[in-house]
Amino acid sequence: MLSFQELSEQFNKGFDKSHFPSSPATLYEPGEYFLKIGGKRIRPVLCLLGNELFNDLHEDAIHVAGAIELFHNFTLVHDDMMDEASLRRGKATVHTKYDYNTALLVGDVMIIRAYEYLQKIQPSYLPKILQLFNQTAREVCEGQQLDMDYAKMDNVTMDQYIHMITLKTSVLLAASLEMGAIIGGAGENNCKQLYEFGRKIGIAFQIQDDYLDAFGDAAIFGKEAGGDIKQNKKTFLLLHALAVANKDQKEKLEILLESNSEDKVEKVLAIFTACGVKDWAENLKAKYLQEAFEHLEAIAVMSARKKPLIELANYLMNRAQ
Amino acid sequence: MLSFQELSEQFNKGFDKSHFPSSPATLYEPGEYFLKIGGKRIRPVLCLLGNELFNDLHEDAIHVAGAIELFHNFTLVHDDMMDEASLRRGKATVHTKYDYNTALLVGDVMIIRAYEYLQKIQPSYLPKILQLFNQTAREVCEGQQLDMDYAKMDNVTMDQYIHMITLKTSVLLAASLEMGAIIGGAGENNCKQLYEFGRKIGIAFQIQDDYLDAFGDAAIFGKEAGGDIKQNKKTFLLLHALAVANKDQKEKLEILLESNSEDKVEKVLAIFTACGVKDWAENLKAKYLQEAFEHLEAIAVMSARKKPLIELANYLMNRAQ
Repeated sequence: MLSFQELSEQFNKGFDKSHFPSSPATLYEPGEYFLKIGGKRIRPVLCLLGNELFNDLHEDAIHVAGAIELFHNFTLVHDDMMDEASLRRGKATVHTKYDYNTALLVGDVMIIRAYEYLQKIQPSYLPKILQLFNQTAREVCEGQQLDMDYAKMDNVTMDQYIHMITLKTSVLLAASLEMGAIIGGAGENNCKQLYEFGRKIGIAFQIQDDYLDAFGDAAIFGKEAGGDIKQNKKTFLLLHALAVANKDQKEKLEILLESNSEDKVEKVLAIFTACGVKDWAENLKAKYLQEAFEHLEAIAVMSARKKPLIELANYLMNRAQ
Repeated sequence: MLSFQELSEQFNKGFDKSHFPSSPATLYEPGEYFLKIGGKRIRPVLCLLGNELFNDLHEDAIHVAGAIELFHNFTLVHDDMMDEASLRRGKATVHTKYDYNTALLVGDVMIIRAYEYLQKIQPSYLPKILQLFNQTAREVCEGQQLDMDYAKMDNVTMDQYIHMITLKTSVLLAASLEMGAIIGGAGENNCKQLYEFGRKIGIAFQIQDDYLDAFGDAAIFGKEAGGDIKQNKKTFLLLHALAVANKDQKEKLEILLESNSEDKVEKVLAIFTACGVKDWAENLKAKYLQEAFEHLEAIAVMSARKKPLIELANYLMNRAQ
C-alpha cells in the first residue's frame, strides 16, 4: 500500500508528459502550457487513494485519475475566463497569455481529452464510471453558474452558499474518491460513505480556500489576494460577517460592497477580523472535518488502509497554499 | 425501413423535449432556448440512417443521435462566440441573447449532456462508440482552431482549406453515419466505406455552405449574408478566386480584404462572379458528390437499403438554406 505522498509522486511522474498531439500547435501548445503549470493534483490522487482503500492499485484508476485532472483543468481554464482572472497558480491564465478564443477552445479539447482517458478503462467498469463522471461534471457547471448568480444577488443564505460550493468543489473530490473505489471493487455502501467523506472534506477545504483568498499570502497562494472581495463573491467569510456584524459594521460593509475603491480589500478584511470571522471559520472547518472522519470510520475495511486518506485530509487542512 | 423524411420526423418528435433539469434556470433555460431554435438536425438523422442501412432501427441509435445533436449544438454555441456571430438560424445567438459567460457554460453543459446520452447505450457498443465520438469531437475542435488561424494568414492553399473543413465539418457527418452503422452491426469495411461517403458528402456540403454564405438569401439562410467575406474567411470561393483572378481583379480583391468598407461584400461578390466562381463551385461539388456515391456503391448491402441515404444526399445538395 502506498502513502498519499508516494501516490502523488507516482501520478505526477505519469502525468508530466504531453497530453495532446503536436498539431495544430496554436490549439495544443496553450493546453500543454496550462497543464505544465502544475497545481496540487489532489483530485487524481484521491482517485488512486479510493482504489487503494479497497484493493491494490489498478491501471484503470490511473486512467480515470488522468481524466479527472484534465476535466479539472478544463473547468479552471473556463472559470478563469468567466472570473477575468489573470493569474492561476502564480502564472498567466490561458486567456491572458493567449486570447479568449484560444482559451475557450483549449478548455473544450481538455474535456474531450478527459473522455479519451476514460475510454481506456476496462469495459466492465465503463458505464458506472461514465455515469458518475458525467453527473459530477454537470454538477460542477451548475456550481459555477450559481457562483456567478450569487455574485449579483444581495441576499444569499448560508445554505444556498453551501449548496453552491458543494456543487462547484465538493462533488468532484467526492466522485474522485468514489471512482477509485469502484475500480477497487468496493460495495455500494462503502462507495456512499467514501463519497460523503469526500463531500464533507470538500466543504472544509472550501472554507479554508475562502479564508486563504482573504487572509492568505498572495505570493504563496498563487492568486491575487482578496480576489473574492474585489468581485463581491459571497464567501463563507462574507456571509458570516453580514450575519453577525453590528449595525455600524454592516452599514460599512454594504457601502464597501458597492464600491471599487483601492482600499476595499483592506477595509473589508478589517471588518471581518472585528467580527471574529477567523475563529468562526476555523471552528466550522473543524466541524465538517469531524463529520468527514465519521464517514471514513463507517467504511468497512481495516483501519490501517485508511491511513493515507487521513494523511491527505491533514495535508489539505494545514496547507498554506 | 423508414425514409429520410420519416426518420427525421421521428427524431425531431423525440428530441423536442426538455434536455436539462429546471434548475439552475440561469444555466439551463439558455440551453433549452438554443436547442429549441431547431436547425436541420442532419447529423442525428445520419446516425439513424447509418443504423438502418444494416438493420432495423435500434433504440441505442436514437441515444447516440441525441448525443450527436447535443455535441453539434455545443460547437455552435462556442463557435458563435469565437466568430462574434449575432444570428444563428435567424435567431439571436446565446451570447447575444444572454451574455458571454452564460454562453460559455451553456456550451460546456451541452457537451457533458451529450456524454450522458451516450452513457445510455448497451455496454457492448460503448467503448467503440465512445472512441469514435471522442476522436471526432477533438477533430472538430482542431478544425475550428485551423479556421481561426487561416483567417489571419495571407496564404492558405486549397489543400489546407480542404483539410480544415474536413475536420470542422465532414468528420462529424461521417462519424454520425458510422456510429449508426456500428449499432446496426456493420463490419469494418462497410463502416469505412460509409465513413468515406459521409466525409465526401461533407466536403460537398461545405462547398455549398460557402456558396450560400456568399450568394444565399439571408432571410432563408438564417445567417447574415457575406459573413465569411466580412471576416476574411478563406473559403472555397475566395481561394479559387485568388487563384484564377487576373492581375487587376487580384489587386482589387487584396485591397478589399484589407478594408472594412460598407460595400466590401458587394464588391467581393462582383469579382467572384467575374471569375466564374459560381460554375466552378458547382462542378467541384458534383465531383465530391460522385466520389461519395462510389463509396456508397461499395457498401455490401442490397441497394434498396441505400435509398434513404441517396434521398438525403439529394436533399442536402439542393437545399436553399
